[in-house]
Amino acid sequence: MLVLLDQTRLPAEEVELVCTDAPALVEAIRSLAVRGAPLLGIAGAYGVALAAVRGFDVEEAAAALEGARPTAVNLSVGVRRARAAHRAALAATGEPRQAAEAALAAARALHQEDAEASARMAEHGLALLDELLPGGGHRILTHCNTGSLVSGGEGTAFAVALAAHRAGRLRRLWVDETRPLLQGARLTAYEAARSGMAYTLLTDNAAGSLFAAGEVDAVLIGADRIAADGSVANKVGSYPLAVLARYHHVPFIVVAPVTTVDPDTPDGASIEVEQRPGHEVTEVTAPQVPVTGIGGGTPVAPLGTQAYNPAFDVTPPELVTAIVTEEGVVSPVTAEILAQVCARPAPGDDRLTA
Amino acid sequence: MLVLLDQTRLPAEEVELVCTDAPALVEAIRSLAVRGAPLLGIAGAYGVALAAVRGFDVEEAAAALEGARPTAVNLSVGVRRARAAHRAALAATGEPRQAAEAALAAARALHQEDAEASARMAEHGLALLDELLPGGGHRILTHCNTGSLVSGGEGTAFAVALAAHRAGRLRRLWVDETRPLLQGARLTAYEAARSGMAYTLLTDNAAGSLFAAGEVDAVLIGADRIAADGSVANKVGSYPLAVLARYHHVPFIVVAPVTTVDPDTPDGASIEVEQRPGHEVTEVTAPQVPVTGIGGGTPVAPLGTQAYNPAFDVTPPELVTAIVTEEGVVSPVTAEILAQVCARPAPGDDRLTA
Repeated sequence: MLVLLDQTRLPAEEVELVCTDAPALVEAIRSLAVRGAPLLGIAGAYGVALAAVRGFDVEEAAAALEGARPTAVNLSVGVRRARAAHRAALAATGEPRQAAEAALAAARALHQEDAEASARMAEHGLALLDELLPGGGHRILTHCNTGSLVSGGEGTAFAVALAAHRAGRLRRLWVDETRPLLQGARLTAYEAARSGMAYTLLTDNAAGSLFAAGEVDAVLIGADRIAADGSVANKVGSYPLAVLARYHHVPFIVVAPVTTVDPDTPDGASIEVEQRPGHEVTEVTAPQVPVTGIGGGTPVAPLGTQAYNPAFDVTPPELVTAIVTEEGVVSPVTAEILAQVCARPAPGDDRLTA
Repeated sequence: MLVLLDQTRLPAEEVELVCTDAPALVEAIRSLAVRGAPLLGIAGAYGVALAAVRGFDVEEAAAALEGARPTAVNLSVGVRRARAAHRAALAATGEPRQAAEAALAAARALHQEDAEASARMAEHGLALLDELLPGGGHRILTHCNTGSLVSGGEGTAFAVALAAHRAGRLRRLWVDETRPLLQGARLTAYEAARSGMAYTLLTDNAAGSLFAAGEVDAVLIGADRIAADGSVANKVGSYPLAVLARYHHVPFIVVAPVTTVDPDTPDGASIEVEQRPGHEVTEVTAPQVPVTGIGGGTPVAPLGTQAYNPAFDVTPPELVTAIVTEEGVVSPVTAEILAQVCARPAPGDDRLTA
């Protein structure tokens, strides 16, 4: 079985969610109980291993897991890696049990690699911050949740902020609440508080005031999928931050492992953006609130109100100052430099520039 | 006594709030039970009249009302107008009763004028839309709530969208939910639904995706205070829309009566922006939800989380395509044209341009 921290219950409660088969994990992924690009990859790989260990149809489980959420490429990468290990072992040995062991080993390896990738992204990201903003005292704005809750290690963008905090060079972490599901308020604030960081929560639309007041030195976000041209799909609300950052000449930095880069997606227009249910917008759901609405929340809009609720938006490469990966920093963001960094077999130089 | 529709209870319930004295009205204004720039002016004037009719200290009531919220200049304008009428009548007749009648007459006149101003703003605004966007089928994005709930008439920005709807030229009204208090979801969606408009609700941070997809033809917002240089203070989240609109070459139009223009505020930097309690961000308050947190809501962030919660932001005149007033359209937005339009004693030409 697979035991996950149910992220929908945070910060009010730390509840473990037990998945005994792949369909339960698919449901956990769809409901965002488990979420965040790197963690989705790890969960997908473990899900395939789980199906194999329990003797279910591995190919069927892999297909269901891969389709649970369309935008995050890491999910697909993790599922395929465990499935490939399973297929190879099955072909070589003909033993389902050995094939299941191979799938589990692949999931564990991915988990471990992700932790190591986090540490390297944090290192590269902090070096970049120090280069772009000499003197420290960084005031960093972040969106959504990118810390240890979504990673085998300390995360992506959050790991960089945490490294700055540990080095005594983080003045403030500005945390966008991240509507509609409030991952910033519920999860990033929780992780920042646990880490002893100086943080302040704000509504997503208050970020403009911070930029205008000169209170933001850099924006750091994660990514759910990066196209071959450097277009970045991330939590809805990232693109407006990129436009604000450009208007105010503030660096806009994306932190993501190379597995987030999908060479099969040529550009931003090719990225499929998941549309989520309207009730996430038309109803407010808070922990332990009695249920009355269609989605189990309390209505905050007239009944029958139609909602536009894309889960992600796409930021074009020209608005991205740098993409920080575990293999180095891509800056400026071009298809060529991105491909070069992603092609590295092992950690190489800190940075490639054109 | 003064009977108001309690806007904090909408759309779940239509509850009347009865204010029998000025302190009750001050509390209603602070809690946003009564809100919106034009309505605040009318309420302030009636509040002075109420104090006068009931024999309370009018000067004291006026001072308390004027200070209830710092950013909306209309509140101050309304209070001062009723107080001036009261003072003048008292000086002329020495009769408190006649002075109270004069204050009430001033409030009623303001109320009536506001209704007429709404109609004229709608007319000027629709003409401007048709000029900027020939062919109709307007897809308008709006923020916060600017309809009949905040006006003696049909409002400001919403009145323009409503005029477009009645003329068959509104394809869609995009309604920003407007965090933290969700005036868009609760109030604008309510007014749009009642008017039979085609509308769609979105989180504030999803507006960027609409701009990127070319789904927004114009942004229409109200204003709480306009400085002499044309800087516009409005609900937090307006400025990011202005930056997005500029980046995407979409007109950004402010609709406000001339009383919103404050010649004593020279520029954007001089506008005092009200900071509201952090619990509006750290807790979710929905109608009929059991109370547990500091602000009576359900916590959505870790306890002790600090919040940045400005009620307004300031958009500089260079990002504003036009200011539509009842006296005509200010475009381009310069101190000179703004002063000319505001100085008009009566409705003049439709538009002044440099």
